[in-house]
Amino acid sequence: MSLPTFYTSLKLHNHHEKLPLKLHSRFSISNSQKPDCQFSQIFQANQSVAAVVFGEASQRSRLYPLTKRRSEGAIPIAGSYRLIDAVISNCINSNITKIYALTQFNSTSLNSHLLRAYSGGLLANQEFLEVIAAYQSPEDNDWFQGTADAMRRCLWVLEQNPALEFLVLPGHHLYKMDYQKLLEEHRNNKADITVAVLDTIKNHNTGFGSFKVDNNNRVIGFKDEIELMSFIPLSVNGSKFNNGFHEKFSSMGIYVMNRNVMIKLLNESFPKANDLKNEVIPGAISLGLKVHAYRFGGYWEDMRSIEAYYEANMESTKKTNMKYNFYDRDFPVYTLPRHLPPSLVTNAVITDSVIADGCILNRCSIRNTVIGPRTRVGDGAVIEDSVIMGSDIYQSLSEKNINGGDVKNGSIPIGVGEGSFIKKAIIDKNAKIGKNVKIINRDNVLEGNNESDGYIITSGIIVVVRGAVFPDESIL
Amino acid sequence: MSLPTFYTSLKLHNHHEKLPLKLHSRFSISNSQKPDCQFSQIFQANQSVAAVVFGEASQRSRLYPLTKRRSEGAIPIAGSYRLIDAVISNCINSNITKIYALTQFNSTSLNSHLLRAYSGGLLANQEFLEVIAAYQSPEDNDWFQGTADAMRRCLWVLEQNPALEFLVLPGHHLYKMDYQKLLEEHRNNKADITVAVLDTIKNHNTGFGSFKVDNNNRVIGFKDEIELMSFIPLSVNGSKFNNGFHEKFSSMGIYVMNRNVMIKLLNESFPKANDLKNEVIPGAISLGLKVHAYRFGGYWEDMRSIEAYYEANMESTKKTNMKYNFYDRDFPVYTLPRHLPPSLVTNAVITDSVIADGCILNRCSIRNTVIGPRTRVGDGAVIEDSVIMGSDIYQSLSEKNINGGDVKNGSIPIGVGEGSFIKKAIIDKNAKIGKNVKIINRDNVLEGNNESDGYIITSGIIVVVRGAVFPDESIL
Amino acid sequence: MSLPTFYTSLKLHNHHEKLPLKLHSRFSISNSQKPDCQFSQIFQANQSVAAVVFGEASQRSRLYPLTKRRSEGAIPIAGSYRLIDAVISNCINSNITKIYALTQFNSTSLNSHLLRAYSGGLLANQEFLEVIAAYQSPEDNDWFQGTADAMRRCLWVLEQNPALEFLVLPGHHLYKMDYQKLLEEHRNNKADITVAVLDTIKNHNTGFGSFKVDNNNRVIGFKDEIELMSFIPLSVNGSKFNNGFHEKFSSMGIYVMNRNVMIKLLNESFPKANDLKNEVIPGAISLGLKVHAYRFGGYWEDMRSIEAYYEANMESTKKTNMKYNFYDRDFPVYTLPRHLPPSLVTNAVITDSVIADGCILNRCSIRNTVIGPRTRVGDGAVIEDSVIMGSDIYQSLSEKNINGGDVKNGSIPIGVGEGSFIKKAIIDKNAKIGKNVKIINRDNVLEGNNESDGYIITSGIIVVVRGAVFPDESIL
Amino acid sequence: MSLPTFYTSLKLHNHHEKLPLKLHSRFSISNSQKPDCQFSQIFQANQSVAAVVFGEASQRSRLYPLTKRRSEGAIPIAGSYRLIDAVISNCINSNITKIYALTQFNSTSLNSHLLRAYSGGLLANQEFLEVIAAYQSPEDNDWFQGTADAMRRCLWVLEQNPALEFLVLPGHHLYKMDYQKLLEEHRNNKADITVAVLDTIKNHNTGFGSFKVDNNNRVIGFKDEIELMSFIPLSVNGSKFNNGFHEKFSSMGIYVMNRNVMIKLLNESFPKANDLKNEVIPGAISLGLKVHAYRFGGYWEDMRSIEAYYEANMESTKKTNMKYNFYDRDFPVYTLPRHLPPSLVTNAVITDSVIADGCILNRCSIRNTVIGPRTRVGDGAVIEDSVIMGSDIYQSLSEKNINGGDVKNGSIPIGVGEGSFIKKAIIDKNAKIGKNVKIINRDNVLEGNNESDGYIITSGIIVVVRGAVFPDESIL
Repeated sequence: MSLPTFYTSLKLHNHHEKLPLKLHSRFSISNSQKPDCQFSQIFQANQSVAAVVFGEASQRSRLYPLTKRRSEGAIPIAGSYRLIDAVISNCINSNITKIYALTQFNSTSLNSHLLRAYSGGLLANQEFLEVIAAYQSPEDNDWFQGTADAMRRCLWVLEQNPALEFLVLPGHHLYKMDYQKLLEEHRNNKADITVAVLDTIKNHNTGFGSFKVDNNNRVIGFKDEIELMSFIPLSVNGSKFNNGFHEKFSSMGIYVMNRNVMIKLLNESFPKANDLKNEVIPGAISLGLKVHAYRFGGYWEDMRSIEAYYEANMESTKKTNMKYNFYDRDFPVYTLPRHLPPSLVTNAVITDSVIADGCILNRCSIRNTVIGPRTRVGDGAVIEDSVIMGSDIYQSLSEKNINGGDVKNGSIPIGVGEGSFIKKAIIDKNAKIGKNVKIINRDNVLEGNNESDGYIITSGIIVVVRGAVFPDESIL
Repeated sequence: MSLPTFYTSLKLHNHHEKLPLKLHSRFSISNSQKPDCQFSQIFQANQSVAAVVFGEASQRSRLYPLTKRRSEGAIPIAGSYRLIDAVISNCINSNITKIYALTQFNSTSLNSHLLRAYSGGLLANQEFLEVIAAYQSPEDNDWFQGTADAMRRCLWVLEQNPALEFLVLPGHHLYKMDYQKLLEEHRNNKADITVAVLDTIKNHNTGFGSFKVDNNNRVIGFKDEIELMSFIPLSVNGSKFNNGFHEKFSSMGIYVMNRNVMIKLLNESFPKANDLKNEVIPGAISLGLKVHAYRFGGYWEDMRSIEAYYEANMESTKKTNMKYNFYDRDFPVYTLPRHLPPSLVTNAVITDSVIADGCILNRCSIRNTVIGPRTRVGDGAVIEDSVIMGSDIYQSLSEKNINGGDVKNGSIPIGVGEGSFIKKAIIDKNAKIGKNVKIINRDNVLEGNNESDGYIITSGIIVVVRGAVFPDESIL
Repeated sequence: MSLPTFYTSLKLHNHHEKLPLKLHSRFSISNSQKPDCQFSQIFQANQSVAAVVFGEASQRSRLYPLTKRRSEGAIPIAGSYRLIDAVISNCINSNITKIYALTQFNSTSLNSHLLRAYSGGLLANQEFLEVIAAYQSPEDNDWFQGTADAMRRCLWVLEQNPALEFLVLPGHHLYKMDYQKLLEEHRNNKADITVAVLDTIKNHNTGFGSFKVDNNNRVIGFKDEIELMSFIPLSVNGSKFNNGFHEKFSSMGIYVMNRNVMIKLLNESFPKANDLKNEVIPGAISLGLKVHAYRFGGYWEDMRSIEAYYEANMESTKKTNMKYNFYDRDFPVYTLPRHLPPSLVTNAVITDSVIADGCILNRCSIRNTVIGPRTRVGDGAVIEDSVIMGSDIYQSLSEKNINGGDVKNGSIPIGVGEGSFIKKAIIDKNAKIGKNVKIINRDNVLEGNNESDGYIITSGIIVVVRGAVFPDESIL
Repeated sequence: MSLPTFYTSLKLHNHHEKLPLKLHSRFSISNSQKPDCQFSQIFQANQSVAAVVFGEASQRSRLYPLTKRRSEGAIPIAGSYRLIDAVISNCINSNITKIYALTQFNSTSLNSHLLRAYSGGLLANQEFLEVIAAYQSPEDNDWFQGTADAMRRCLWVLEQNPALEFLVLPGHHLYKMDYQKLLEEHRNNKADITVAVLDTIKNHNTGFGSFKVDNNNRVIGFKDEIELMSFIPLSVNGSKFNNGFHEKFSSMGIYVMNRNVMIKLLNESFPKANDLKNEVIPGAISLGLKVHAYRFGGYWEDMRSIEAYYEANMESTKKTNMKYNFYDRDFPVYTLPRHLPPSLVTNAVITDSVIADGCILNRCSIRNTVIGPRTRVGDGAVIEDSVIMGSDIYQSLSEKNINGGDVKNGSIPIGVGEGSFIKKAIIDKNAKIGKNVKIINRDNVLEGNNESDGYIITSGIIVVVRGAVFPDESIL
């Protein structure tokens, strides 16, 4: 995509003296807040917003093999949650309850989770979480080609919603934000677009580029870290570009766009753009739209790697000063409700760990570990510094042979067998760890791909793939 | 109510030779299976049945003070369940999904539980759990006077259901039964009424009396243990009363009644009877209706006392050979789905215990104990042989003073404080146990009522009442 | 705020002759907004409120026989709704989604409706409609004795809710009100209690008495129309009683009470008071609490008689200038969602009528009539100026004889038979009108009780009772 | 059962020229009912089955332009339903409540419908309708290439279900079938695969080919009508091919497959096959698997054309002898529950029509027409022999200009304007028909594509596309 090359002496917003004609007509209503004002009398503040959540980071996830069968948003975290629960809970806690989730990549488990957790329990026709999975149509046989393409192709759905602002959210970040504050700042600044940026973590490669802002928090430039483009030079709003105080903030990939701005950008200004982050948003800046930066100062984690994911889980086992509090009643984290029995513990020493429900823990020692739902741990097992995702089902004996009756594997039940020792590992769901297995990274491998053997090693963390089977006495 | 005094030479069912005329007209259709046959073509077997569950044992519960604010069916058990979940789960697992729950005594928490757990998630207009709370009407200003009275007053609701059989179930028993087998036997025997009886536990005072049955399992007499009435002598169906082989079985309070039989018994035969167990059912036997006994051989517990309730909870902490299995996938136990975070365990030695979700367990030792949802246990606390019901809410600091700000109590948060020691106790919900409290029955009291101090002792078990507060250093 | 300094010889309702001085200290926090301020940082405005809806007017309803089997709130209105839907929809549209419904009188259908319509579909643990049916407890075996008694006995439930304001609502009125405006005025005036009053309809006997207010809309007196008491004379807050401008407004029975005010009034000031309207609220005025009047100017109908109910239904058939708009997307009316097929119309002339779904209308003429769900109308029937509530079920032929097989009635299906003529009538649910029946009030009776014949006449309107049967050729 | 002993020179679909002998051993368990028997003790009959519903016929729908924005299964029918409701209702009425819906083509509205209508209201973790939208994965970036490919790629999901039989169902047919009877016959015949065939409609091109069956209803050949292939000649099971009595039946595209058979066919025998109908199923026949034909004799409509769709709608307006009964209580048709108000009819003559809820019909004449939800018809309008799908929203005046404010179109509200005349037309949702518009096919066109003008004509039926706008006085 070719961005506009230069826009000298643009004086946009409020007192546009020399607005180029062609731009003028394109965005004739972009800065007019009249429709908004008009509607703010009809819709309550929180009703005027709809959220668009992207269920996955991208096809090539940095969290493979956790993303082999699921998108990033569907990865289990902290025992009972999926990563996307954090963002959806932010929406609900911010009283934004018109949510579209756009999914495409390995979307089955994400769709299922979203729908079971959120769709059934919202208010009739007024509140909803609607999952829009990528689809073929007579007009377009292709997959979504990016965030902008996805939104453009879903515009016919989004336009049916009378929302005046659309809040675009990546679904795979862990943080707590009251989006109403973001919206308030957006409205108070009469912005066309507001982007959320990291205030505290500087120069962080979030994958969404970074923005240069002036001292009114107006965005005046964008840089995509990946391509190491130089900032698009802009002289906006009469600000003296070289003299003003400018700061650079990493983008969180969160955008508030006014309805008409969004529609015109996608359909008219950049009808071929595939991505929001490095095509539409930078384009909007170049066009001189009023793009405001909302600085966010709280905890934020983007699970950019297996290591970051591992650390976020370890964080959840801390008793105090948790960076992300799953136990906060005033800003709760929602997820799929469960009907599991309580965990049955025969004789365990458990230290600094979280234990989900439905587990059966026999005489074992668990330290600094996240234990997911329905996990079974056998006698004498020791688990340290690990994430055990648990099991989707209770396996009954009769059931072991349904799928083919492989003797070797069939005899190993889901869970962690007797006498096994697991240290610094992530065990994906439904893995079958036999007896006296050692998952300890014996050879201190830092990076290694043994996927065909059921695991990979990254940053020294062993990741056991979903459903992998480790016979008795295995050592890795 | 005065029961019929004598019925000599009645020969009912099948080959009624000398059926008294007045009875004949009363029950002219009672043994005719024609309507059933006709309808069995329209309704599937499981659709022809509706269940009527009684939410509470009676006003004077043997489980006080656990029933101070709730009926017996609503008592928490095994960490995550309510007692009534066992019976409702039996219904669902037996594919009986038209359920009426009749409640009256301390029904608020039971109603709330039933509706949140079961009402929302059943099939449209075809499956339901409908709670019928006692109500006043122009015709009757009074409370339900007993099970028969309750059903009679709800007949206008029950009659709208085209069910051909009604399955009456007490809601406060712990057992697993496939009711379809009971119904099958009922139909195969072309019975008017089938009662379930305990096959293995002999002479148990279930509170529902006991039945004398002949060698075809036909009921030929009833005895109410409470009143120690002698068995009603009957000569039914030509059986030689004195010579035949007879056995006495304890009633489980479970009755299958054919639709028309139920209506006629309640409205015409015994229009003033208040109770099913010692008025309507014995009356039906006396009238010569075909009452069949279904012998049930499994585990059954009626929570007849605090001690029995305590033992049932202890049973749930066993690893193997549980009498009642909460972890059985093929016959699961349903309950209210929860959104709680996993339990956070700082440093605990846990032995033979069940741990519900949402708990925060610090450096503590837990042995042979049921820990309910959201339980907080402080550093150094030791809990043994106990049932901790947990908390309804996460208490935030700011919240402690909402309700009046009592300094002494307000400063003690819900949960078990640091250094406290609890042994052989039942701690009801939301209790606030301070630091270094000892709940150990120091004086080895067997029975004692200290309700004003927040506890009673029964059979040597200390029962701490809901919401009770024990300041630091208390010893009891 | 300065509290009243002396209370000499105040004559309060019921019994308190000399209000004790210490009352002053009792309410020391009543007007302090400190707790509110403190909490407003924690809870959002709409989260700080819980609604308490009373499901029924009283035991002796003015709408008999429509209330024979249901409470006033459960009466069908406008084809697809129940009366209580109006108030619950007000709550939802005002973003008040923590609702307690207190019921007791003929509550079965109301409970069922509320739970099916609203309980399943609200947000997890944060939003709810909780039905509290009257219940017996060890402490109190009696029914609720009035609104104040009901709230006092449910205080243990209400207190668990951290709401800072409780909004008390009668459930049987038809109106649209944004309760947030009421609450805003309550907060802006730092009132202890705010009452809603009718601004436009003067001297209307609402059943809730009327308030005298000063020119700041502060309430300074109460009069119960029933007892025709003179206004309680008050000198409050230094207002010059005789000189100020005073107005009298009819109460709508809607009260906002601050949490602590509510608790103290019910438990300490008037622990024996049964009613809010003529005991607690007047008492609060007498105690000098700051009671504010919120004047409501919109349409409001209290269904004080069969005639008023009839007129409200006729109103719903108007095309334009409806006083109460069921078709307003921005303030929708919620109700139980239905799965009914569309109405099938063979050959009908329909004029100024509303037709619910699932009806089967053959060659008939319908004018100025409300046709409820599943109504069947036969060939040649004429219905004018009437309310047909419809049927709860589709009756299949095989089913007619389930309940006893009365030949005469059994042969008449639910609905309106061929050739029948109905004019100015209310036909309750499941009525069976045979062929060529005339329900036309032939003798121009104004008032008549023929309940045993299946109808009563009031204000010249024929009311056919639920399930009544009229054989072919009947004329009334 | 004796498996086929030799497979000389079988010509299978695609490529396998000489079926390898080892296939025999591959399917060693295929006809053994042992696993089934074993499991039938654990699972109830209805629990052992899972349904796989295909949401759409194919990308190139014969029902364009109704499928412009939706798949065939999502097309509205009979006023209140979507086409797929028929099949899902069959499942529920057959007590098959583990349903996977596989979607890909224009799936948004189908997914949304399925999830709102069915997902929220099923039993906890035991019953479900799970929508699996096509997705990209690391292993496969492509769309589903056909029914077999779709099932193969979802096998990892299906295999998690312990079902022993999988029932494959096209989602766009209109019929009522008790699938339990189909399954019973499948089990009684110990078949590997059972296919449903049309018993009454001979030689119908269903799009699924046709089967040749012997006099035991065993399938012995397949013919794809499209390719006009000759029947695959087979000598199976010792049947004397030339002498037996053979019949040819059209396939309904409905297949029951035993679990292991399905897995082996998809993964091992035909790992490259894309389609079930003309690759996997014919292949299974060729392999000698026991394929049984279940003959279905009821009404069945496959919506193979706009004309067929039109006729099916006209059928629903018939009073008696409906071929497909939407009003049958014993076999109800489920759909999305709605909260719409009843229809408001000012002055209409309605003949042989169905009227959904939420309509506003002014002084108009409606004959032989299906009127969908929220339809508005203006004064003097006449609608005959048509299908009006209705509107998704109530349009408020203020709203008309949200999306751009096109004066010409914006002034025409959704619905049918005053004085307009519509005859033999299908009006898709949200169309805006101005005043005095004539949609009458003035020129008696039989086929015509005027999509850019908002309509096409097929078989003389005018189809107005979704959201099309016809200014006042338009004639077509």
